[in-house]
Amino acid sequence: MLTKTPPPPYVAVIFTSKRRVLEGDGYAEMAEQMDALARAQDGYLGIDSARGDDGVGITVSYWRDEASVRAWKQVEDHRAAQAEGRARWYERYTVRVAKVERAYDFGQ
Amino acid sequence: MLTKTPPPPYVAVIFTSKRRVLEGDGYAEMAEQMDALARAQDGYLGIDSARGDDGVGITVSYWRDEASVRAWKQVEDHRAAQAEGRARWYERYTVRVAKVERAYDFGQ
Repeated sequence: MLTKTPPPPYVAVIFTSKRRVLEGDGYAEMAEQMDALARAQDGYLGIDSARGDDGVGITVSYWRDEASVRAWKQVEDHRAAQAEGRARWYERYTVRVAKVERAYDFGQ
Repeated sequence: MLTKTPPPPYVAVIFTSKRRVLEGDGYAEMAEQMDALARAQDGYLGIDSARGDDGVGITVSYWRDEASVRAWKQVEDHRAAQAEGRARWYERYTVRVAKVERAYDFGQ
């Protein structure tokens, strides 16, 4: 449900977006493919994602280090999905790359 | 809709949570109050939030520096809301404090 990550430091990529509201536009399929592809990358630690009814979504993916973040950004199918996202699915988005320095959990 | 932040560096607090599903439990009111309170803090830069139908939510707040993050954590009404959250609203949560090193936007 929520990702468990190893102790910091590691890198978080915070992707906030506002979707265009279109049903049957292939978005869900792409998102599932990208999720599977990310999981297969070296340095992948996990992912959390939520999208509300207002079209605002936040996806945070966790990575071992900067090198794995940069490698993931360049994966060919991921680059194609990014271009498709700009052309079709997203009205706006922001990507923030951040170094996680501390973390704490509540609950199991 | 989505927060616009100044150029990095700044600090992101990534709060991922799984809510207990209870209607009329005062959660929405508390969330609104905490949002207003956060906006009034010194060093506050913005906030993005999304929660899906599965009860998984992600809130990312942005702060000028570590000092403003730590001050916000200690605000009395915020501490009370944190305790209430553990007792009533959240099944699980993770807080990650991360230094944003780079960011880029698409769209307006």
